[in-house]
Amino acid sequence: MAQRGFASDNAAGVHPAVLEAIAKANDGHAFGYGRDDWTRRAEEALQEQFGSGARPFLVWGGTAANVLSLRAACRPWQAAICADCAHLNVDEAGAPEAIAGVKLLDLVTEHGKLTPALVEGAIVRVGDEHAVQPGVVSISQATELGTVYSREEAVALAELAHANGLVLHMDGARLSNAAVALDCSLLDLTADVGVDVVSFGGTKNGLLGAEAIVFLKPELADGFQYLRKQSLQLASKMRFLAAQFEALLRDDLWRALASHANAMAARLATAVSELPGVTVTHPVQANAVFAILPRHAIGPLREQFPFYVWDEARDEVRWMCSWDTTEEDIERLVSAASAVL
Amino acid sequence: MAQRGFASDNAAGVHPAVLEAIAKANDGHAFGYGRDDWTRRAEEALQEQFGSGARPFLVWGGTAANVLSLRAACRPWQAAICADCAHLNVDEAGAPEAIAGVKLLDLVTEHGKLTPALVEGAIVRVGDEHAVQPGVVSISQATELGTVYSREEAVALAELAHANGLVLHMDGARLSNAAVALDCSLLDLTADVGVDVVSFGGTKNGLLGAEAIVFLKPELADGFQYLRKQSLQLASKMRFLAAQFEALLRDDLWRALASHANAMAARLATAVSELPGVTVTHPVQANAVFAILPRHAIGPLREQFPFYVWDEARDEVRWMCSWDTTEEDIERLVSAASAVL
Amino acid sequence: MAQRGFASDNAAGVHPAVLEAIAKANDGHAFGYGRDDWTRRAEEALQEQFGSGARPFLVWGGTAANVLSLRAACRPWQAAICADCAHLNVDEAGAPEAIAGVKLLDLVTEHGKLTPALVEGAIVRVGDEHAVQPGVVSISQATELGTVYSREEAVALAELAHANGLVLHMDGARLSNAAVALDCSLLDLTADVGVDVVSFGGTKNGLLGAEAIVFLKPELADGFQYLRKQSLQLASKMRFLAAQFEALLRDDLWRALASHANAMAARLATAVSELPGVTVTHPVQANAVFAILPRHAIGPLREQFPFYVWDEARDEVRWMCSWDTTEEDIERLVSAASAVL
Amino acid sequence: MAQRGFASDNAAGVHPAVLEAIAKANDGHAFGYGRDDWTRRAEEALQEQFGSGARPFLVWGGTAANVLSLRAACRPWQAAICADCAHLNVDEAGAPEAIAGVKLLDLVTEHGKLTPALVEGAIVRVGDEHAVQPGVVSISQATELGTVYSREEAVALAELAHANGLVLHMDGARLSNAAVALDCSLLDLTADVGVDVVSFGGTKNGLLGAEAIVFLKPELADGFQYLRKQSLQLASKMRFLAAQFEALLRDDLWRALASHANAMAARLATAVSELPGVTVTHPVQANAVFAILPRHAIGPLREQFPFYVWDEARDEVRWMCSWDTTEEDIERLVSAASAVL
Repeated sequence: MAQRGFASDNAAGVHPAVLEAIAKANDGHAFGYGRDDWTRRAEEALQEQFGSGARPFLVWGGTAANVLSLRAACRPWQAAICADCAHLNVDEAGAPEAIAGVKLLDLVTEHGKLTPALVEGAIVRVGDEHAVQPGVVSISQATELGTVYSREEAVALAELAHANGLVLHMDGARLSNAAVALDCSLLDLTADVGVDVVSFGGTKNGLLGAEAIVFLKPELADGFQYLRKQSLQLASKMRFLAAQFEALLRDDLWRALASHANAMAARLATAVSELPGVTVTHPVQANAVFAILPRHAIGPLREQFPFYVWDEARDEVRWMCSWDTTEEDIERLVSAASAVL
Repeated sequence: MAQRGFASDNAAGVHPAVLEAIAKANDGHAFGYGRDDWTRRAEEALQEQFGSGARPFLVWGGTAANVLSLRAACRPWQAAICADCAHLNVDEAGAPEAIAGVKLLDLVTEHGKLTPALVEGAIVRVGDEHAVQPGVVSISQATELGTVYSREEAVALAELAHANGLVLHMDGARLSNAAVALDCSLLDLTADVGVDVVSFGGTKNGLLGAEAIVFLKPELADGFQYLRKQSLQLASKMRFLAAQFEALLRDDLWRALASHANAMAARLATAVSELPGVTVTHPVQANAVFAILPRHAIGPLREQFPFYVWDEARDEVRWMCSWDTTEEDIERLVSAASAVL
Repeated sequence: MAQRGFASDNAAGVHPAVLEAIAKANDGHAFGYGRDDWTRRAEEALQEQFGSGARPFLVWGGTAANVLSLRAACRPWQAAICADCAHLNVDEAGAPEAIAGVKLLDLVTEHGKLTPALVEGAIVRVGDEHAVQPGVVSISQATELGTVYSREEAVALAELAHANGLVLHMDGARLSNAAVALDCSLLDLTADVGVDVVSFGGTKNGLLGAEAIVFLKPELADGFQYLRKQSLQLASKMRFLAAQFEALLRDDLWRALASHANAMAARLATAVSELPGVTVTHPVQANAVFAILPRHAIGPLREQFPFYVWDEARDEVRWMCSWDTTEEDIERLVSAASAVL
Repeated sequence: MAQRGFASDNAAGVHPAVLEAIAKANDGHAFGYGRDDWTRRAEEALQEQFGSGARPFLVWGGTAANVLSLRAACRPWQAAICADCAHLNVDEAGAPEAIAGVKLLDLVTEHGKLTPALVEGAIVRVGDEHAVQPGVVSISQATELGTVYSREEAVALAELAHANGLVLHMDGARLSNAAVALDCSLLDLTADVGVDVVSFGGTKNGLLGAEAIVFLKPELADGFQYLRKQSLQLASKMRFLAAQFEALLRDDLWRALASHANAMAARLATAVSELPGVTVTHPVQANAVFAILPRHAIGPLREQFPFYVWDEARDEVRWMCSWDTTEEDIERLVSAASAVL
């Protein structure tokens, strides 16, 4: 697949500025494990985005960012409420349960978004020792289905969570795409709406491999340095993760890349909507397009472009746009779809 | 610390050939999670080193490589026998216990090396349901103390382990240095002596951040793809880990780098041995030099060069050499030491 | 609540024959941890019921019986498929996840019973490393809702499970009640239909506090003695658990007690069905009656008799009958209900 | 082994008063899980012994009492410091690690007792993220070797623990024997010397099977009701555990029983000390006698009386006295020993 496809935003490569920053960080010796200048600067850059009280920690992967957030936020008897399509619930191989010991209370949603009514219905049996106790509400921003919580929606969930003593976690593997969608800052989307801890993704937006866990409720970070190490996520040559984040946050590169990916998805959605027999199934607010196609068209199209069948029973596919998707890529996909339909 | 020091081999940067391989791998799209050509080639390259039946898996970190080896090898009631100075036991923040649920039976050793007699003394209460059951013997090659097991020593431990139904794990964070020390191949050191699973380190030998878990007893790898994902160690942009290993294994770069680091350590050991009041405390067989210094000399020397005090009570320090340590670095350290003594 | 109520079958006391057996076992010294004659006899008695190849282990509690079954049957990446109302899922405080590390794939059912179609729909993404892998199907016999799987239904689930390499676990906290309902032996209900491991409950059927985990697929029991100890369920004075089971199995006391409890539930169901405004919500096949009452009636009735409101939103209550429920108890409840309605 | 032996104090049966209390509690229905009068009274009785601020929880077993204490006291990155011969470390099948995720830092001791100097030596690398962080000091009172900490010794350990922010746990499986040895109250031994949480054993002192976890630092108990349930230790018919404790604490039965057992051990120690070739190896302060015998004598003696060889290499045996050991039992053992020597 040297050719660009629509399989995933992590099928894309590394943005040149990021690669350059890595090369530049390769300058002699540096103390390991984050006691270096790159890490200090990356942490400061994250605090510029998320607020001066934010406590950021770099890790390698997104599953780790989510699972470590749960380890930090939950006592052993607490559960996390999430959408049933959440990455936590369906794409992390049981890590929340096996590694964090946290049960997930997964809820059926519309377009992948929790609502206060749904969450309220899951905050039950509080104080009943036979029942796992809700400890966290985890929402994905953008969601697995390419939709975005408005700030008002997020505020309402935060207020509900806090009123019940729960922590609000945001899985922001695609937080940049959500910020672009809402034309707001990362702060607007997180600390300002009441998020307590966010998994801020980099890998899906042009990094080689780095994510940040950012605690906005700072006391959740107490002792987290031990949890990160114990949970297999303390990089020895941390400067090379930090350099990636520095590059991503410099001159709002993150916004430019996510903005492009979102624009490509919007263009794709518009174009395929006009094709006969194609139904876009979720609002296209970030960089993903979900659509139902005539079954006969799916196979031939996948021979030309990598992408996933999301739901075989419904003939629903997912096309993911990336920072490097081009207008030509979109045109070629639309033409090909048009041809097979 | 732009200046090269002796703090750790992971304070060194990335070898240029490795960085170049990463840049070259940044070529359009590639399927994530290891379904790409770089990963296939890296796995083949690892099989060339460790035998065609070897089953290699790439991960990000060394703690992960060790802990995942235990997760793969142990049933819940099994323990791992190791040296008390093993990285597993003292430098992984309780990860073996907290993440793998595995108790460590740690033994006092001479120069960091287990012996059959020591291990035999720990294989007790087999069949007694009140006692954790030995399941793994874990040895470090090279050890934390810079020493190396001879092939005969390793064979003896493997035979003992297998005779008792135990798995032999090798923590090879510095396996390359051991291979150089013994002038043998990686196969000679592992599969051929009876090792069942090895953590093969790359980060301490010039990589940006990548390690391999290589199962030599192939059935231990059954289901390991799930364990790796669940244990937070499946990289989405795997090609960039794979490219590192490809570069490391091409034209025996690993051997050249480790050979250099070992040579620098040997040179350093020879030179400091001649200084008054300096006692080298362990045989210098890989890339580390441990020495007792007069207390008054340690502080001034550390102001000039980064290195660790290993044992404050004994005034023992550790000087670690890297792939990029130069003869001049050694000379400068020795001169400085000579001056403060 | 010295008065008998309908809160739970574990609100009932101990059958006199069981108490007598405990007293009789209090005869001098006996080796601890099950190396005693009572345990040997209880295990033999269990093998008489479950087949000579069955491997029984006594534990204290029902949650433990279920969670230890999962620990024995699952590798770390495997999940258990169960009904969403299963005790495992809603009444064990997250123990399957926190103690066994096992994710539950919970399914909406009719009357608490899994079907092959439901289970088949949950056996998905097999071989996909991002998804937890189904390892166990867990069914409750009788179910939490007082219904019973027919032998044919259980056979169909066993065949489906085995065809997919899964283990069939039966939560038999009320297995005796199910055997009575189907007028069959414990063997008929378990080994003969293909169950691999069963939690055989005693506490809800007249014991003081003892349950048995019975492995019908014997290799699942390999090493289980260690798991039991490690999982905090090895009783030192085991003879007093064993004596309870001996008493329960002698002369089919288990059947007499469960038979009585079931008969009381049937009588209650018949009587309340005729009351105005009362709807029995699930087939009454074991010792529980679920019914929807007019809201105004629930409070006054609960002042007279202990019982649970099962679903507040639906005004659904649960009346549980026990080995010691009398016909007079039923009559008094029905009269009182009649009066408040 | 209907005959009384010296294998273990849990080989003894149930004291008649305890059995009677169980029978008396078998009076109609009672709400499950501790919402009953017996449990309320037992908790009050425990508060009379341990102080009105104590928060007691009943569980089934001693391993559970210890492991749940650790689960309550430790964050995931914390370790427990204990003697290497501690039950936690050698006789709980790896449960602290596998169930609580807690690494044990085990120390070589004299006569099974930690000292401030030993503990201080283990409180190292505080704040170093690579090292597990000490969170608990766990001492056994009486110890596994039949010795007892004086109140002054315990105070010194408590002060050291608290000065370092650590919790002091006391494994009091034989706390009653220690209180007798020191002629003091349970309060004197625990809350008054600074113990934060104690596992108070009943089973080894005449109960059928019940232990109490008593939090003396009350905030450690926050949420513990969930931990107990999740950790498989919430008895449904709790009244039968509670009744045992009520009986044990009524009229200081616990003291009478432990006093007798200690006296028998003292008598035995005195007698065997005078036999040729017998060396008592630890101070006999509670109900255990450890002694080295001529190897030829051990086998013949064990044919007549059950007891354990504690250390085969040293020919060291353990004789355990119980609440029901008689002077005749001691005389018979001593005569037999005398005969085989």
